Amino acid sequence: ALYKGLDSWDEVVGRIRGLHTDTLRKLAAKCEDRFMAGQKGLLRFGTDSWSHFRLTTGKPCCEAGDAVYYTASYAKDPLVDYAIKICRSKVKETQQQFFHSLAVRQSLPIHFNIQQDCGHFLADVPTCLLPPHKEDKEENTKGLKEKAVNTEASSKLEETPTAGSINTSGRLKSRVVVITREVPFQTVADFVHEGVTRHAQNPELYERQVCLLLLQLCSGLEHMKPYHVTHCDIRMENLLLVQSQPGGTCTGIIAAASNATCPARLIISNFSQAKQKSALVTADPGTLRNQSRLAPEIVTATQYRKCDEFQTGILIYELLHRPNPFEETPELKEREYTWADLPLLPVRSLYSQGLQQLARLLLTVNPSERIRMSEARACLQCLLWGPREDLFQALGCSSAGPLSGSTASHREATLQNWLDLKRTLMMIKFAERSLDTACGVSLEDWLCCQYLAFATTDTLSRVVHILQQP
Amino acid sequence: ALYKGLDSWDEVVGRIRGLHTDTLRKLAAKCEDRFMAGQKGLLRFGTDSWSHFRLTTGKPCCEAGDAVYYTASYAKDPLVDYAIKICRSKVKETQQQFFHSLAVRQSLPIHFNIQQDCGHFLADVPTCLLPPHKEDKEENTKGLKEKAVNTEASSKLEETPTAGSINTSGRLKSRVVVITREVPFQTVADFVHEGVTRHAQNPELYERQVCLLLLQLCSGLEHMKPYHVTHCDIRMENLLLVQSQPGGTCTGIIAAASNATCPARLIISNFSQAKQKSALVTADPGTLRNQSRLAPEIVTATQYRKCDEFQTGILIYELLHRPNPFEETPELKEREYTWADLPLLPVRSLYSQGLQQLARLLLTVNPSERIRMSEARACLQCLLWGPREDLFQALGCSSAGPLSGSTASHREATLQNWLDLKRTLMMIKFAERSLDTACGVSLEDWLCCQYLAFATTDTLSRVVHILQQP
Repeated sequence: ALYKGLDSWDEVVGRIRGLHTDTLRKLAAKCEDRFMAGQKGLLRFGTDSWSHFRLTTGKPCCEAGDAVYYTASYAKDPLVDYAIKICRSKVKETQQQFFHSLAVRQSLPIHFNIQQDCGHFLADVPTCLLPPHKEDKEENTKGLKEKAVNTEASSKLEETPTAGSINTSGRLKSRVVVITREVPFQTVADFVHEGVTRHAQNPELYERQVCLLLLQLCSGLEHMKPYHVTHCDIRMENLLLVQSQPGGTCTGIIAAASNATCPARLIISNFSQAKQKSALVTADPGTLRNQSRLAPEIVTATQYRKCDEFQTGILIYELLHRPNPFEETPELKEREYTWADLPLLPVRSLYSQGLQQLARLLLTVNPSERIRMSEARACLQCLLWGPREDLFQALGCSSAGPLSGSTASHREATLQNWLDLKRTLMMIKFAERSLDTACGVSLEDWLCCQYLAFATTDTLSRVVHILQQP
Repeated sequence: ALYKGLDSWDEVVGRIRGLHTDTLRKLAAKCEDRFMAGQKGLLRFGTDSWSHFRLTTGKPCCEAGDAVYYTASYAKDPLVDYAIKICRSKVKETQQQFFHSLAVRQSLPIHFNIQQDCGHFLADVPTCLLPPHKEDKEENTKGLKEKAVNTEASSKLEETPTAGSINTSGRLKSRVVVITREVPFQTVADFVHEGVTRHAQNPELYERQVCLLLLQLCSGLEHMKPYHVTHCDIRMENLLLVQSQPGGTCTGIIAAASNATCPARLIISNFSQAKQKSALVTADPGTLRNQSRLAPEIVTATQYRKCDEFQTGILIYELLHRPNPFEETPELKEREYTWADLPLLPVRSLYSQGLQQLARLLLTVNPSERIRMSEARACLQCLLWGPREDLFQALGCSSAGPLSGSTASHREATLQNWLDLKRTLMMIKFAERSLDTACGVSLEDWLCCQYLAFATTDTLSRVVHILQQP
């Protein structure tokens, strides 16, 4: 059947195009299986497994906004690293937030860019394992002395393990402790902080890395939309970086991450501020009737609907070593600002102008005019791997105005050709990877494969149009 | 530059075609590097390394026509297996043959399908390591009693190691011993012997395996042609099978080999009967003048030129469990027999008729009409992966007669389409291999890749024509 119609050139071309598309989709799915290998086998550690965890070192591997992370190993599976997340705040407040964020996260199917917990406990943690400065300062300003809070039996958290490996020495504090498969090596804040000179010396590399991190952030946030979840606290300290391929030492990872085009896997963490429009609200006719009389901006879920988009816009400034425009000029928010009021990002690389445009689209004052997360994701894919401006200029169809019929079809044909060529190149890349000694399909290969597998001339056109808006 | 002319469909198609071809050639070269990894780093063991070899077991891993093979390990590189080849015949005769075959083999650049030695010695070997039956029979019929021949110091073989690991116990016999990287697990004779029921039960698989073995044999023999070497003793006992990928136990290998489409890597061994038209003969004007007056069939090199082709033809019968036609009917050779005089091979699979045709072409009585090794190799590639008869029948161009201009160009276009589609599929196969857990590009992948990388519509046409000769 594959060889039928082999005398028709058009049929053969169509067949090859179909094979390429199908294969890229299959490869994208296989990549997902590989990159999420450990995660898909839904791991759940009960309280009884708690005593089987041992910290690998006494030094945190990452200090995030809401917690410190330690690398740990599990006695029954000693070759796999886990992370133990020790929440910063005191149990009382953490617990509440934690239950909330747990409920929100458990309503989401797993995603490559969203933190997933494999077990959580209330545990007595020696103070030496907590980051001293932040804690002390926080406690001193509050004028409170921690007094080794007795572990409280919690119905939800089952029971407090008393034989935890962490309970070994020093003053103890009760903390919520979470076990995750993904061991972060730094936060995006650390990455940006360390990237100042790199940004100056190699802006092309640095800004491409920023695009790849933003793309992962947008993918994770886009994944939450159908479940009506808004994170509401997208800041650099809540975004963790995890090595995308197993193996390698910690310092080695950081060095490799700063030099590779795709620095690392990004994980969205800290759902304590997350909002969720509960499915119950829409299902219950009574509540529905009451809500139907409220102005849309009053309904919380509606109000927060485009919040993550806005915060992602701010993040673009911060990732490019610029301050948050609304922190710099607080009065901006008081009025109906326009794009012209937003500070300009310096043009340092091929990506700067695209990122500037994306920041504007995400920071648009009117939420209904603000770009959607899925569109932002598509814009980043286009910036990273899409057809460049010069392609359209060369074709004389770069104007954003309405196109005549023949120009439009010419443009469509060119985009299709571009896509065919790109898919061939992607296929070749995968084929060559099969003979690499390391046999390494990289995270960037996967992300690019996702793009090419699902792009169409229509989506390409639409995104180019969005990015070219004056 | 890659994106120039992106508005022209023809250019894009040409570009994609070029990319596919180039990539397949690059992949074929990379495969060669991988499959010949150990071999390319020209290993040479001197007499001093002899004592560092240890037999892994006391049982031979393979009993071939001219030698028995034992798996051995080298103390300085214990993870790699080597084979120790102990020549069957007594030193006196072996030595002479061995020097001859050594000289012949050393004139050939290394090839995947030609045995390569990494060192050779004269050693005292305990009789228990020699295959008892054959030896004893041979010796009894000759009425000779072996009397522990003293090792002779040989200038060419440097010196006899006295501390060899083999010199441990029992009666000793002096033997030529060779070290090779490729550890054979059986000979083609064993494979054929074990394949009788498989041939009956799964003829499609068995006959495809035969094609893959023959293809490798032809590649090796074709490689020798530019160096004017003729093996002259192509028989099943001289063809060794080696696992094509490292790892795996011996019994595992045999089971895997009989079930995989590509049973194993084939290695041409025993060059003791090989003829070489020496470069000196042609270079020396005096000899040249003398030779120029001799009838061509008298000049040895010319006489033997198509000998391997003939023997390969006989091998086709034997591989398909049929006797050598010239052993069955010795009088055939006395007369100018035709194809009609050769026994028919039963049609058991898709490959039977092609193999029958190839056997006829190789057994053609007149050597100048006999098919060349390179053509035989191309026929086998076509049988394995080439366009099938039904493709040509469907196009109405299966007749072997002269074609009209438009039919010919139609046929050419169809072949090009076929090739484009096949190359796309091959590329996809490699791309998918990159995400296999074992990351395994198989020997068959490589062989097929070689074919598609260098095929043109011309070569395709020519081979199909050869195979369709009435």
